[in-house]
Amino acid sequence: MPRLRWLTAGESHGKGLIGIIEGLPAGIQIDEQLIAAQLARRQTGHGRGKRMEIETDYAEIYTGVRLGLTLGSPIALVLPNKDWSNWAHIMSVEPTEKSPKPVTLPRPGHGDLAGVMKFGTTDIRNILERASARETAMRVALGTIARTLLSAVGIQVGSRVIGIGNVTDSSPLPHDLKPNALNEMVDESPVRVFDRSFEGAMTAAIDAAKAAGDSVGGTFQVIAEGVPYGLGSHTQWDLKLKAKLGQAILSINAIEGV
Amino acid sequence: MPRLRWLTAGESHGKGLIGIIEGLPAGIQIDEQLIAAQLARRQTGHGRGKRMEIETDYAEIYTGVRLGLTLGSPIALVLPNKDWSNWAHIMSVEPTEKSPKPVTLPRPGHGDLAGVMKFGTTDIRNILERASARETAMRVALGTIARTLLSAVGIQVGSRVIGIGNVTDSSPLPHDLKPNALNEMVDESPVRVFDRSFEGAMTAAIDAAKAAGDSVGGTFQVIAEGVPYGLGSHTQWDLKLKAKLGQAILSINAIEGV
Amino acid sequence: MPRLRWLTAGESHGKGLIGIIEGLPAGIQIDEQLIAAQLARRQTGHGRGKRMEIETDYAEIYTGVRLGLTLGSPIALVLPNKDWSNWAHIMSVEPTEKSPKPVTLPRPGHGDLAGVMKFGTTDIRNILERASARETAMRVALGTIARTLLSAVGIQVGSRVIGIGNVTDSSPLPHDLKPNALNEMVDESPVRVFDRSFEGAMTAAIDAAKAAGDSVGGTFQVIAEGVPYGLGSHTQWDLKLKAKLGQAILSINAIEGV
Amino acid sequence: MPRLRWLTAGESHGKGLIGIIEGLPAGIQIDEQLIAAQLARRQTGHGRGKRMEIETDYAEIYTGVRLGLTLGSPIALVLPNKDWSNWAHIMSVEPTEKSPKPVTLPRPGHGDLAGVMKFGTTDIRNILERASARETAMRVALGTIARTLLSAVGIQVGSRVIGIGNVTDSSPLPHDLKPNALNEMVDESPVRVFDRSFEGAMTAAIDAAKAAGDSVGGTFQVIAEGVPYGLGSHTQWDLKLKAKLGQAILSINAIEGV
Repeated sequence: MPRLRWLTAGESHGKGLIGIIEGLPAGIQIDEQLIAAQLARRQTGHGRGKRMEIETDYAEIYTGVRLGLTLGSPIALVLPNKDWSNWAHIMSVEPTEKSPKPVTLPRPGHGDLAGVMKFGTTDIRNILERASARETAMRVALGTIARTLLSAVGIQVGSRVIGIGNVTDSSPLPHDLKPNALNEMVDESPVRVFDRSFEGAMTAAIDAAKAAGDSVGGTFQVIAEGVPYGLGSHTQWDLKLKAKLGQAILSINAIEGV
Repeated sequence: MPRLRWLTAGESHGKGLIGIIEGLPAGIQIDEQLIAAQLARRQTGHGRGKRMEIETDYAEIYTGVRLGLTLGSPIALVLPNKDWSNWAHIMSVEPTEKSPKPVTLPRPGHGDLAGVMKFGTTDIRNILERASARETAMRVALGTIARTLLSAVGIQVGSRVIGIGNVTDSSPLPHDLKPNALNEMVDESPVRVFDRSFEGAMTAAIDAAKAAGDSVGGTFQVIAEGVPYGLGSHTQWDLKLKAKLGQAILSINAIEGV
Repeated sequence: MPRLRWLTAGESHGKGLIGIIEGLPAGIQIDEQLIAAQLARRQTGHGRGKRMEIETDYAEIYTGVRLGLTLGSPIALVLPNKDWSNWAHIMSVEPTEKSPKPVTLPRPGHGDLAGVMKFGTTDIRNILERASARETAMRVALGTIARTLLSAVGIQVGSRVIGIGNVTDSSPLPHDLKPNALNEMVDESPVRVFDRSFEGAMTAAIDAAKAAGDSVGGTFQVIAEGVPYGLGSHTQWDLKLKAKLGQAILSINAIEGV
Repeated sequence: MPRLRWLTAGESHGKGLIGIIEGLPAGIQIDEQLIAAQLARRQTGHGRGKRMEIETDYAEIYTGVRLGLTLGSPIALVLPNKDWSNWAHIMSVEPTEKSPKPVTLPRPGHGDLAGVMKFGTTDIRNILERASARETAMRVALGTIARTLLSAVGIQVGSRVIGIGNVTDSSPLPHDLKPNALNEMVDESPVRVFDRSFEGAMTAAIDAAKAAGDSVGGTFQVIAEGVPYGLGSHTQWDLKLKAKLGQAILSINAIEGV
C-alpha cells in the first residue's frame, strides 16, 4: 500500500476549500453523509464564533469514489464557502475595477507580520485568509476518510476536553470505555467534558474571556484502540511515532504544545 | 521559496479533474485564459480522438489567486467533465439501484491487468478511468502555472515533433530561434513538425495506423532558454537533473523512453 | 540551495556511529575540533552516567570537506566506539561460535516491547542498541555542522535549563544577552542553570532520584538570534515551522513534550 | 515496513566512500563476502581503466548487522580508498601548508563547468571528485543489500550487454533462463554478451575507441523474475513504476537514455 499523502487548498473567505488525499486501498466504503456528520461536530461547542452558526459545511466527493467505494485513486473533496456571494468582490480571483480595501493591522500572535514581510504584500488579507482556522474544516473532511480506513481495520479514535482556562477535569476514563463511546458521551456536552460537573465552570471561563474580548486556552486528550504494536520506528529520527504525531498536532493553528 | 509540489485527482469520465499546486511565490500574474489557451493546444493535432472534438476544456481557478495575482498559498484548479451528464450513472459516486455494466476485457500494454489484480476489483473500469491520458489535461493546466513562473524569471520552454512512425525530421533548429517562437511556428502544423515538407508523410503514417486499428509511435524534442547553470546536483543520486527530468517525462502514460 | 537532509546509523555498543548530512553550500569552514568541542559539552553535567566518563567522543570527517572547506557534497562523519574491544563479541557483525547471552527483560517506558514484537526477535538487545540515547552523539556532531552554517549567516542558537524535578529557575534573560554568551555562562554550571542560586537544589534533586534508582525530568529553553522573518510557511500543514520544530524536538528519545 | 532510503557520500580520491541504507526488515542474512563478490564483478570487463586493476574494493559493514543478521536499524558501509596514501595531500580534509595544484580545465560532457559556476570554486577538482563513476562502487555495495532482500522474497535480477558501439547482439534469451543463471553465463564474457560470437567485434570496438583516445557507448538489458503484480501505481504521477525506474537508472552518471 502506498502511504497516505494529502494536501489542502483554499482561503477562509474564498470560493471554498479543496483537498486531495491519496494512498487509500480500493473498496473502502465512503459516504458524503459520514463527512457531513464530522463537519457538523466541528461546528458545535460553547462559545463558537458567528460563522459556525451561518454555515452548515458540506463537502462534495469529486473524485476517487465510485458506487460508494474507493477506487484506490486520489480522492478530491470540494467544500464550497456558503457565504461566497458576500465575498466575491473582496476575494475575486480576477482583478476588480475598484480595489477592495486592504487589511493593514497585523494581529499579535498570528503569522500576519511574518507573512506580510515574507510574501511582500501590503494587504494582510493575503496572509490571514490562508493562516486561518477555516483550513481545519478540510482537515476534518479528509480526516473522516482516514478515520473510515482506520475503522475498516478495527481502530477507533476518541477524544475529550481535559481543561479550559483554570478548570481541569482530571477524572480517569473507565478502562472499558471505547473511543467511539467516549465521543458519543462527550459530544453531548457543549465543552466535550467527561465529568459534566465541570461544565458550568468551563463555560463560565469561556464567557468571561469572551466578555473581556479575549479567548481562553485548553487541553484535550486523544485515545485510540486497536492500534497495532510497532507503529513508527526507533531506527531513524524522522520515523519516530512521537515525532510524527507531534508534527501533525502542532500543525494545527491554535495548538501551542504537546 | 518552498519547493513546488503538486497532486492531481480525477477519473477520465468522472465529474472532472482536480489539481493542487503549491510552492509558488506570491505576486505572480495568473489567468484562467492562459490556462485555457494551453488546454486548447493540447486538443489540436492530426488524428486526435473524438473526445478532443466534443470538449473544450476549461479549468477554473478555485483557490490561491486573488485579484489576478498568486497569494503564495496552494492553487487548486477544477476542470469539469463536459460530458458528465452522459456518465453520471456509470460513474456515480453513490451506489446505484441498477449496477452499471463492468468492463472485463483488459487492454494489452495498459496497466489494466496489473491494476485489477492489485486493487482486487472485477471491473476494469475502476482502473482504466484513472490510468488514462485524460489525466494529462490537469497536468497541462498545472503546467501552465509552472510555465508562468518560469516566464517570470525569463525562462522559455518549447518543443517540436521529430518523428512519427518511420518519418523523421532531422532538420536542425536555427540557433537564434527562441522556444516561444518555435512553439508558435510548429503549432501551425497539425503534426507540430518544423520542416513542413514532412507533414504529408507524417499524417499519412497516422492515417494508415488508424485505418489498421492501431496507433503509431513518435519522438519529440523539448528545448529551454534562460535556464541558469547548475540546476539539479551531482552530489546525490536523487538530486541529479537528468534523473529528475527522466522521472517526470516517463510518468506520462504514453511515453516509453528518454 | 538544496535542503539539508541527514541520516544517522549505529548501535550503542557497536563499532561506532556514522552520519551523513548533505545540502550544505560549498566553501563553509568546518573543523573536527569544533565538532569535538560540542561533543565534549554533551558529556558534561551533573549526574551523567559512567559511560560519559570513560569516553571522550571524537568524530572523524570522512567525506565532503577538503582543505578545511565544505565541497557541497555529502559530509560523512565516523564516530568510533572507544569501548568496542569490550563489546566485539556481544555485538559482532559476523555470527560467533558461542552465541552471546540475550537480553530478555523489557524496560518500561522504552520501545523495547514494541520493538521486539515488531522486529520479531527474542533478544531485546537488538532493539535497545538503536533505541538509545547514544544516537544523540551523532546528532550533536551533525548539528555542529548545521550550527556552523547558521553561524555563517549570522544566526546564533543558545539554551539553558529551566527546571529539574520540582526546582524551577523562572528568572528572565537579559534582553541584550546573545545566545552564544548565554551558552558560555550556563556551561559553567553543572546543571546549565542561569541563576546559579538554584544550582544546589537542582543537583540535590538529581542526587535524590539517583539514590532511589530513578531519574528526574526537566525543562529547557532554546533561544535563537538573527533568524529571518518567515521561516516555514502557513500555506500547508507540513510546512509550518511550529510543526517542523515539534517533530525535530520530539524525535529525541528522552523528550516527552513541547 | 518502512521504505528503503539510502544516501551515499565520498569523493573519488578521498579517504573512501560511505553509504547508509535503511528500511530493511530485521533478520535478513547479510555478509561482507557477498558485497565483496558484487564489487569484484564491477571491477571486471574488457577495457576497464587502470584504477580497476590497482584496487580490490572491500566494504566494511559498520552498523545495522549483528551476528550475521540485519537488526532493522540503518546499515552503514565504509569502503576505504586503497590509494589514499597517494592522495592524502591533494585531498586533505584539513588545510595544508602548501596548497595542492588546482584542476582548471573542464571536461566536456561532464558536470564540471556547471558545478564550478554553481559552487563558486576555481578548482574543478572540488566538483569532479564527487561527479565521478567512483560513486557507483557504493551503489553496488548498497545494491547488494537490496538484492539480498529481493532474494529473500524470491526475486532475481539479471542483466546482459546488448550492444557496444555498432555491434548488437539481438539474440533472444531462452524463456526458461533465470536471471541468476544469465548473470553467471555472461559474467564469463569480458563484455557480458550472451551470444559470445559477438565478443570479438565488441572488444575490437572498445580497443579502437581507446586507441583514438575516446570511449564507446553501449546498451544493456535488465531482467527480473518473481516480481509481484502491481508494483508502483497508476494513481499519481510520481508513483508510476516506469517513472521511478527511469529516475533510478538515469541517476547513474554514464547513462544517457532509457
